[in-house]
Amino acid sequence: MFPDVSAFHRWFAQRLDAEAYRVATVPLHRLEGWSTEPDSGDLVHRSGRFYSVRGLSVTQSGRQVENWQQPIIVQPEHGILGILVKEFHGIPHCLLQAKMEPGNVNLVQLSPTVQATKSNYTRVHGGRAVPYLEHFIAPRRGQVLFDALQSEQASWFLAKRNRNMIIRTDEDIPVLDGFCWLTFQQIGDLLRVDDLVNMDTRTVLSGAVALRPPAGPASDDGFAAALAASWQPSGRPLHSTTELLSWFTEIKAGATLTRRLMPLSEVAGWSAGDGVIAHDEGRHFTVLGVSVEAPGREVAGWSQPMFAPRSQGVIAFLARRVAGVLHLLVQARTETGALDRIEMGPTVQCQPADYAASQPGRPELLDQVLTARPDQIRFDVVLSEEGGRFHHARSRYTLVEVDESAPLRVPRNFAWVTVRQLTDFVRFGSHLNVEARSLLALIGFLPDDQVPAPPSGRLVASGG
Amino acid sequence: MFPDVSAFHRWFAQRLDAEAYRVATVPLHRLEGWSTEPDSGDLVHRSGRFYSVRGLSVTQSGRQVENWQQPIIVQPEHGILGILVKEFHGIPHCLLQAKMEPGNVNLVQLSPTVQATKSNYTRVHGGRAVPYLEHFIAPRRGQVLFDALQSEQASWFLAKRNRNMIIRTDEDIPVLDGFCWLTFQQIGDLLRVDDLVNMDTRTVLSGAVALRPPAGPASDDGFAAALAASWQPSGRPLHSTTELLSWFTEIKAGATLTRRLMPLSEVAGWSAGDGVIAHDEGRHFTVLGVSVEAPGREVAGWSQPMFAPRSQGVIAFLARRVAGVLHLLVQARTETGALDRIEMGPTVQCQPADYAASQPGRPELLDQVLTARPDQIRFDVVLSEEGGRFHHARSRYTLVEVDESAPLRVPRNFAWVTVRQLTDFVRFGSHLNVEARSLLALIGFLPDDQVPAPPSGRLVASGG
Repeated sequence: MFPDVSAFHRWFAQRLDAEAYRVATVPLHRLEGWSTEPDSGDLVHRSGRFYSVRGLSVTQSGRQVENWQQPIIVQPEHGILGILVKEFHGIPHCLLQAKMEPGNVNLVQLSPTVQATKSNYTRVHGGRAVPYLEHFIAPRRGQVLFDALQSEQASWFLAKRNRNMIIRTDEDIPVLDGFCWLTFQQIGDLLRVDDLVNMDTRTVLSGAVALRPPAGPASDDGFAAALAASWQPSGRPLHSTTELLSWFTEIKAGATLTRRLMPLSEVAGWSAGDGVIAHDEGRHFTVLGVSVEAPGREVAGWSQPMFAPRSQGVIAFLARRVAGVLHLLVQARTETGALDRIEMGPTVQCQPADYAASQPGRPELLDQVLTARPDQIRFDVVLSEEGGRFHHARSRYTLVEVDESAPLRVPRNFAWVTVRQLTDFVRFGSHLNVEARSLLALIGFLPDDQVPAPPSGRLVASGG
Repeated sequence: MFPDVSAFHRWFAQRLDAEAYRVATVPLHRLEGWSTEPDSGDLVHRSGRFYSVRGLSVTQSGRQVENWQQPIIVQPEHGILGILVKEFHGIPHCLLQAKMEPGNVNLVQLSPTVQATKSNYTRVHGGRAVPYLEHFIAPRRGQVLFDALQSEQASWFLAKRNRNMIIRTDEDIPVLDGFCWLTFQQIGDLLRVDDLVNMDTRTVLSGAVALRPPAGPASDDGFAAALAASWQPSGRPLHSTTELLSWFTEIKAGATLTRRLMPLSEVAGWSAGDGVIAHDEGRHFTVLGVSVEAPGREVAGWSQPMFAPRSQGVIAFLARRVAGVLHLLVQARTETGALDRIEMGPTVQCQPADYAASQPGRPELLDQVLTARPDQIRFDVVLSEEGGRFHHARSRYTLVEVDESAPLRVPRNFAWVTVRQLTDFVRFGSHLNVEARSLLALIGFLPDDQVPAPPSGRLVASGG
């Protein structure tokens, strides 16, 4: 446990020094353990397990671009992302770990207690046992606070979901090397640091937002009060949950997106060369190979293909107050790889470099985010996507509050939603996409920089 | 509107006489407008629309029988099942219709206000416009009370879902020929009549259970009070919703079921002959063809393939009181054709004739239902499945209350759940299967035979 955040940073710096990792780019055709299928060009592991990179043909997307083809990661198994929570002196703490992932720009970030693919925990690697796994697989002893199957980056994964779990325990928990206990308040501070709290931790934390009233930065403009009202079950939403579920059903019922796996070598608009597969116009992402030497990992070294975005993303909610209650502008979004094709996403989610100004397909409202005044920006941090599959994939996560002249009538695929309503949707899984869940965790754990913490810091009851 | 249920029955008898329908069995290879694809043997419509009958290969089902092949109905579009509600003198009424469906044993049953496939309402038939459809498609004027995408019979349909909607209106609504207004109390009475309220009406009504306190038969054993406590948001459940969602996630995360479409002519264990496709051991169902002459329908005559079960089904919840609150024993069930493979179903759902006593695969707890004492049976009615696709598909729907010596610890794929918890799951769609939704409607609208109705009979607020 750390008395303050600077003590954490000292510990974390030691962790960085403790082990020598080396990640090098390797041509795809020279990846140890991986091969290119002769007929399809698909990238597959020799074990037939882990994941593969295949081609996807998308038609009738309902987006500005109706039809396209692209490489996609296929990983048809559910992993576990789990955070163990324990109270010390009445204050709940989360057990997180400093973990290396080859795609991280800084290699090591803060991961959940357990971050394991099924291959991991059934030891297809032949690696070491996953520590603390026994708290997350049945029969287990702790109290479940959250447990839902959630989608991951649907632009890059086909039907990938992970089980997101938060388990509370009263047992004595040995703290293994590389692990640490952090309070929610400390995590709130660390979420403001670029590239520190990884995507897996953020998505699990979105399940904890319902359990703890948000603080919000102390300011005299009423933002903290509007945020608190947005979290309260009694806070009056613009639309009832019945209306929002109907809005979501309407968009889902109209979805026409059709997906078909196809040979990777035949994907139009993409070409293999120089040991990578790249988009012909330099947009979106590149498929590349890396080799890893990592003495602290389950396996001391390995190679793998990864997706490397060509540019930084922007992931933003617009927020506005409605009768004193903060509302977020949620988008019912066609999600290429998501099981049910439509999920709720942020107001804006894109790589702006892919959409030159005034180009067709440039997302609505992107410019409102990019031109926001400093006083409108409630947070603004660059965070990494999953470093186990994505190489230096970074996005700017931001919350932009617009004033009450912003229209409440919005295009049919958008809706103004309270924080409480989002936490209700998160519980049921497959409603919020991973980008929206990251933003929700950032909103729910905004640091309370000036006001002292409530004396107990306890979690509230989990809503039934 | 009807002063009492007998007035309804007189009206309904006139409807039966009003139009002359004729349904005849026709060999599959002589179905007008349908053909057998030469390579696959699949049954398809010449328009390429509506639905098709194909082969399905199932592996790693996680059921007693791990792998099998079967014919399946493929209909990759969402229809609308909608009920229009309006208050007259403060009492909500539902607009239902007496509608012919060729698979109904009695041809005509009570359907929702709108029961339309996408082909219907976009008029692929070239038929008449669907009446009242304007109340269900955007932009619409009424108030939405319920709106969710729900699965249908997953043993016979691949990934079939319909949009279930309840819309309240204050407008003047002309009552077209064949339509009628019924109160929820009258519908409760009619749900007790064999083969009268059709499946589409029942699944939509499951979305209304949250809106109106159940009555339950007046009896001196406290059943009505236990049912009312089970419906109340304040009624204390055995498991919190967080625990139930975790239980459901656990079963989903462990699902291994794999499905692959295959040529219908190659499906093992099934054979074509005598103009039908039948199971070699006489189990499950038969694929047969029918021709219909129906002057009152959108199209005056047509032909189509249907699935005809070989025997009657049993669809039952076991119920028991826990501290005075009625709980239902729900099963997290592998659903062959369901989008996400696992849904919550009744305690027992099968065709008992397919499972001789002591045969492996005979469902757990079936015998508890079949041998229940009369005083344990809270309702018992034979109802039809969707008469547009299924021919004389009938099941016994029953609620069996077991005493408090029945174990609260149950096999891992079962859980005791309150009515309120089920109504919460129903709102989010794809949680309860269609059989469980029918039972929920029956439970929620149990007639209150002796106690007078509450003066207003109004719907309560829809839960946010």
